[in-house]
Amino acid sequence: MNSAADNSPERLVHVPLGERAYDILIGPDLIAHAGGEITARLKGRKAAIVTDEHVAPLYLEALMDSLQTDGIEAVSLTLPAGEKTKSVEPLVAVCDMALSARIERNDCIIALGGGVIGDLAGFAAGIVRRGVRFVQIPTTLLSQVDSSVGGKTGINTRHGKNLLGVFHQPDLVLSDTGALDTLSEREFRAGYAEVAKYGLIDKPDFFAWLEKNWRAVFAGGAARAEAIAISCQAKADVVVEDERETGRRALLNLGHTFGHALEAATQYDSRRLVHGEGVAIGMVLAHRFSARMNLASPDDAARVEAHLKAVGLPTLISDIPGEALPTEVLMNAIAQDKKVKGGQLTFILTHGIGQSFIADDVPASEVQSFLEETQKG
Amino acid sequence: MNSAADNSPERLVHVPLGERAYDILIGPDLIAHAGGEITARLKGRKAAIVTDEHVAPLYLEALMDSLQTDGIEAVSLTLPAGEKTKSVEPLVAVCDMALSARIERNDCIIALGGGVIGDLAGFAAGIVRRGVRFVQIPTTLLSQVDSSVGGKTGINTRHGKNLLGVFHQPDLVLSDTGALDTLSEREFRAGYAEVAKYGLIDKPDFFAWLEKNWRAVFAGGAARAEAIAISCQAKADVVVEDERETGRRALLNLGHTFGHALEAATQYDSRRLVHGEGVAIGMVLAHRFSARMNLASPDDAARVEAHLKAVGLPTLISDIPGEALPTEVLMNAIAQDKKVKGGQLTFILTHGIGQSFIADDVPASEVQSFLEETQKG
Ligand SMILES: NC(=O)c1ccc[n+]([C@@H]2O[C@H](COP(=O)([O-])OP(=O)(O)OC[C@H]3O[C@@H](n4cnc5c(N)ncnc54)[C@H](O)[C@@H]3O)[C@@H](O)[C@H]2O)c1
Ligand SMILES: NC(=O)c1ccc[n+]([C@@H]2O[C@H](COP(=O)([O-])OP(=O)(O)OC[C@H]3O[C@@H](n4cnc5c(N)ncnc54)[C@H](O)[C@@H]3O)[C@@H](O)[C@H]2O)c1
Ligand SMILES: [Zn+2]
Ligand SMILES: [Zn+2]
Repeated sequence: MNSAADNSPERLVHVPLGERAYDILIGPDLIAHAGGEITARLKGRKAAIVTDEHVAPLYLEALMDSLQTDGIEAVSLTLPAGEKTKSVEPLVAVCDMALSARIERNDCIIALGGGVIGDLAGFAAGIVRRGVRFVQIPTTLLSQVDSSVGGKTGINTRHGKNLLGVFHQPDLVLSDTGALDTLSEREFRAGYAEVAKYGLIDKPDFFAWLEKNWRAVFAGGAARAEAIAISCQAKADVVVEDERETGRRALLNLGHTFGHALEAATQYDSRRLVHGEGVAIGMVLAHRFSARMNLASPDDAARVEAHLKAVGLPTLISDIPGEALPTEVLMNAIAQDKKVKGGQLTFILTHGIGQSFIADDVPASEVQSFLEETQKG
Repeated sequence: MNSAADNSPERLVHVPLGERAYDILIGPDLIAHAGGEITARLKGRKAAIVTDEHVAPLYLEALMDSLQTDGIEAVSLTLPAGEKTKSVEPLVAVCDMALSARIERNDCIIALGGGVIGDLAGFAAGIVRRGVRFVQIPTTLLSQVDSSVGGKTGINTRHGKNLLGVFHQPDLVLSDTGALDTLSEREFRAGYAEVAKYGLIDKPDFFAWLEKNWRAVFAGGAARAEAIAISCQAKADVVVEDERETGRRALLNLGHTFGHALEAATQYDSRRLVHGEGVAIGMVLAHRFSARMNLASPDDAARVEAHLKAVGLPTLISDIPGEALPTEVLMNAIAQDKKVKGGQLTFILTHGIGQSFIADDVPASEVQSFLEETQKG
């Protein structure tokens, strides 16, 4: 946190995954220098870019120009924006584009966009020729601090979110902090929920720093780059310890069991709820539920709620616009979630701010009565 | 080879891939005992079986019975037989079946069938929930000695064969040698081409043994199990050395560059050519081409041709029924093959029987004139 005063425009987080190690660069203007960063690291000289209709008009030309300058032959595919793009047909379209462009193992697929584009393009990169190179250029705060790091890729099916996918690490992540200037306030806030999450998992000092400095993070500049770098480092640390999510990595799901249930219950309708908003409400619920189970002080839950509210995030189920979400619907969605083992629920609970832990024996009945009480008011 | 006299009904080949290590059991009656073998090794008690319309009436009931006896809850999906089943729609159907049946990470997808079913089901097992357990029950000789070992999975696209897929190792392979009794002579012979391949790569003694004992291998019993076990061991050795095919594993492609080109040129029409037949012709061509390049003696090429002919395999391009295959069409197919790097061709060539090597600088022009001469007669 001291280094928030550091004025160097660019930060580097190295993810030491052996053969699959890679760098995350964080700083302004990285899109305009993508070509050089890629040619410095990858052997191939072909690229297939995947982006969406919101991002393409803003950044695609700059990226293509930079690639061309550095001798990379690139094709691109612009898909509709939104969660629905994480499905089979767009996946097949991306693979087809890459194969038509004769992308080989050392060439790359580039994701230019938010988590939706990153998850989709990463999945394609993992299966085209059983794996080609993958470059992430995340353009939302959420994707810069979360989805672009760690190698999880995937698409949704009628059975739920992210049910098909592979683990496929990127070879390079370029987090252009300037690109976040065109992001809506709402999307920025949603990504901020994941930033706060890292503090709540195991970095109480970072959470306290955010309580004081969140306005500077929203404004941009050094505090923003700092928050992104700390978040990436936090995620990278967990990923390196547990690449395939068999243990500790589950901590990253703090707020996500409730969050995913809320997303499912609102049919992934982004007008009602986006992922980070679900996580914000989910983190408040996880802290409140922990307090109810006498695991943590209710004061901590109140502090989490106060901070997320201050930045403008929803913190209550009733903050979600539209029709009410019955507890039954939420419980059903929770039961469908993949973190269910042999009937009992796995939840990330907490002993207080920065003291989260994995609980794999949470009785569904406790969750149900908690939700019922919460919903009553 | 000495152990061909060994009368134990069952053989075990262990594939020591660290965390991904697994056993291959080879012997009669394994389908009827699948339940016990699976419960002895995997934690999950759910299975989703993928099979095809030829295999289902022969073995599906026996498999389901055995699973039920051992307390495994199973669902199944029977797909059309043939290479066309290795495509996107069946892949999505398999994933959907597995998700409907709530297959979780420790549960398994079971492939009951030949290489088509194995490649498809393995791909699904690699992407459902980013990877669930996978059990191979190969029922063709080709799949028992080749496709079920090594973790390569995949489907075809309009751009070519196996262009989408993942590396996903099985957790168990059950090679029921008795199941081969219902296989057509032609399919058995096609699989035999891959058995002979292991001799030609680096086991001259095994090739000599096959020249003497092939009739016994075709007849069944100990010689068959022996040939399958040696083949699995040979493949496993290469896979362990080079799991992701960055080096030595390419030797397994002996005969396959030509073979794939022949398959592509005949539009994967199994009435004209099946994979192993393409490999048989391809191996003869590889030996002849090596002789032409003064790398090996023409006597070795003649010996390979004589043996494959003796077992009833095609050895000449002109052995393929139907219209002639112009050299231009074959060269085009070779250029499309994924083993092309920067314009030059990668081929597996040989210094003689059991002395194959990787040549990554074969001039396309040499291949072209060789094919032209060959085609003339
Ligand atoms: N793989 C992982 O580990 C992981 C982790 C967390 C979340 N996710 C996934 O990430 C997805 C959510 O990601 P997201 O929030 O980035 O959503 P998103 O990709 O849909 O982006 C949100 C919106 O912002 C727009 N946008 C993106 N960049 C912009 C920019 N610079 N300026 C203006 N508009 C811009 C997009 O077009 C879209 O409309 C979900 O599918 C979630 O499952 C994956
Ligand atoms: N993954 C790998 O490493 C690898 C290696 C080699 C080949 N392959 C793939 O394997 C496929 C070819 O495999 P295959 O030759 O087994 O083809 P296949 O699966 O199409 O089987 C051949 C035919 O035999 C039938 N059959 C299967 N078992 C039978 C039995 N016991 N009795 C009667 N009929 C039976 C099938 O229904 C089919 O009609 C190709 O797609 C090839 O690309 C993969
Ligand atoms: Zn998240
Ligand atoms: Zn083969």
